[in-house]
Amino acid sequence: MTEGVQHREAGTGKRYDVFHTDCPARDVVDHVTSRWGVWVLISLRGNSLRFYELRESIQGISEKMLSQTLRALVQDELVWREVEPTTPPQVTYGLTDFGRDVGEPLTELFDRITQRLPPRSAG
Amino acid sequence: MTEGVQHREAGTGKRYDVFHTDCPARDVVDHVTSRWGVWVLISLRGNSLRFYELRESIQGISEKMLSQTLRALVQDELVWREVEPTTPPQVTYGLTDFGRDVGEPLTELFDRITQRLPPRSAG
Repeated sequence: MTEGVQHREAGTGKRYDVFHTDCPARDVVDHVTSRWGVWVLISLRGNSLRFYELRESIQGISEKMLSQTLRALVQDELVWREVEPTTPPQVTYGLTDFGRDVGEPLTELFDRITQRLPPRSAG
Repeated sequence: MTEGVQHREAGTGKRYDVFHTDCPARDVVDHVTSRWGVWVLISLRGNSLRFYELRESIQGISEKMLSQTLRALVQDELVWREVEPTTPPQVTYGLTDFGRDVGEPLTELFDRITQRLPPRSAG
């Protein structure tokens, strides 16, 4: 038994082995920790947002990438999507219970990273 | 003030605004949550590993991507790298205190995702 296998068994792979590409949990983890998935989940923690508000709050994201990221998160049931039948239709996104559950350790992760970095110089 | 800005202030951006591309914390967050960074940090949680052990434990990662991911994590001081002057040299990687600190919420994240998914059917 190699160290790698030993660790894998002692680690997160209770029912799923997320280290394997055919694991369904790995897809969800990949979406949550995708380049933009992280920021979408964090942005939605405070309140639900319209598409354009999400786009404005996450600097550097393109409309295409935001759509793609939201589609994956909605499919994973981390994010809900609501369309108001106005003209033009208003689309709102928010966190499901699952999304909120997953958002907590993500926020903790960011807090630990920002706390560790030296304070920003003023000005 | 838009909802997006309000949330940003109430959220993780105490000293840094991680929603902006010029934020140094965002680089670290991006490395931690990169496609492979996540799995490297989780793999190293149990014990330090040699390069080839890491490569074996993370299915689907190429040698090039593993090198690149490790380089970023070492630069961020999340992972240490030790070279033993044998022939050929043995290179070992492990988590720093900072890496361990960041690894905790990552593990929590995975536990929450795997717990939520239906149990795998036997066989």
